[in-house]
Amino acid sequence: MRYELYYTASNQGRGEFVRLALEEAAADYVDVARLSGPGQGAEAIARFIQDAAVEHPPFAQPFLKAGKLVIAQTANILLHLGPRLGLAPKSEAGRLWAHQLQLTVADLLKEIQDTHHPIAHGLYYHEQKPEALRYTQHFLAERLPKYLGYFERVLGGAKGRGCMVGRSLSYVDLSMFQLVEGLRFVFPRTMQRVEPGYPALVALRDRTAARPNIAAYLKSTRRIPFNDRGIFRHYPELEESVWGQTPMALP
Amino acid sequence: MRYELYYTASNQGRGEFVRLALEEAAADYVDVARLSGPGQGAEAIARFIQDAAVEHPPFAQPFLKAGKLVIAQTANILLHLGPRLGLAPKSEAGRLWAHQLQLTVADLLKEIQDTHHPIAHGLYYHEQKPEALRYTQHFLAERLPKYLGYFERVLGGAKGRGCMVGRSLSYVDLSMFQLVEGLRFVFPRTMQRVEPGYPALVALRDRTAARPNIAAYLKSTRRIPFNDRGIFRHYPELEESVWGQTPMALP
Repeated sequence: MRYELYYTASNQGRGEFVRLALEEAAADYVDVARLSGPGQGAEAIARFIQDAAVEHPPFAQPFLKAGKLVIAQTANILLHLGPRLGLAPKSEAGRLWAHQLQLTVADLLKEIQDTHHPIAHGLYYHEQKPEALRYTQHFLAERLPKYLGYFERVLGGAKGRGCMVGRSLSYVDLSMFQLVEGLRFVFPRTMQRVEPGYPALVALRDRTAARPNIAAYLKSTRRIPFNDRGIFRHYPELEESVWGQTPMALP
Repeated sequence: MRYELYYTASNQGRGEFVRLALEEAAADYVDVARLSGPGQGAEAIARFIQDAAVEHPPFAQPFLKAGKLVIAQTANILLHLGPRLGLAPKSEAGRLWAHQLQLTVADLLKEIQDTHHPIAHGLYYHEQKPEALRYTQHFLAERLPKYLGYFERVLGGAKGRGCMVGRSLSYVDLSMFQLVEGLRFVFPRTMQRVEPGYPALVALRDRTAARPNIAAYLKSTRRIPFNDRGIFRHYPELEESVWGQTPMALP
């Protein structure tokens, strides 16, 4: 089975959570947005979303073609891929639990994206800077600690099992790696300060980065660098709005 | 199987999407927050979320106890319940498609919630009114038409199949009913103006409301009325910010 991943090549975004699973499993896949040639790449994605003949049209990227199936919504793609790539539990209860965690990751991702786009994704960041600042202050004070504390609890802390679901690697672990990497890029000072409070999460990030297929992927040109176009964006003034005023107060 | 639904009794919120499925199927369930007695109701929910002994702790409400399973995330609960209540397709492809649509409903719900809480859910609405106004203008102009147009397209328009998934009722149809009801409560003028553009969606809403089990539920005291505490809140000034200035311009 050759999978086709449809997601913009301009940033890691939500597509990266799918890419990490495909890469870890050394799956056969094509990153459609990166194909060059007439009608390929970004053009192929736009055409697909508009195509009236598509039986199950996606509302948005990313989506995956798996044979005759077209699957959208990141967590839904991973729900489908997980068992096929050996990255999900065998039992239905285990799969629901993995999916539940992945949906919680998706919720956090949206909140991270809103730190720089709280008013409208159709506007530029510079058109909503005061709102972004106010949003980010609350996000860093209230929301981020709640999410990270929850994930650390699921991992069972420093003496835990070391993975999010059951006793072996799942796509949720790969997503946690990406979350920590993204947060380090967006809020470097905050993460440096708070990470000691989440030892299991940091250990999971380190072990994941060291996995041979993931390490090879991260070094390859297939890994798009973090930049200022995706969910994870580094605007120093947003973090500064918290740390500049109350240097040791958070979380 | 007696299901136990855990969700605040103070408003319909996300729990309502689960309730509608349970009610349509005449399933045996307990709405835990509405039990009275020592240690029951809201107290039981808080205790459950904090309980260190829970193997798969929910990050947030709603969650469902189904025998030994504890399932959180609204769409995940419906993924599990759908086939058991006869409200989901039989094929895996059909179930993924239903779930994909439900996740898109969840995305829209979050955007609706943010119309009155764009900065922080830990603040009151009156503490973020200017931002709510600006957010809502963009939401009504850009986002709502995109979502409603997508759902109408999935229904196939006025000559379509009349249901969201395949050829029979699914939990997604019940969720579409709730979306239209909620939007009518929040943005009555907008909905009155735009609904003729979405005939299949309106017809689906009407047919769903007329189903015997749903009609009985809506008339019962089990249906919590819309109010000013949930996702769907009616703040006339938000809608006015669009309609007052450009009465016929949207969408």
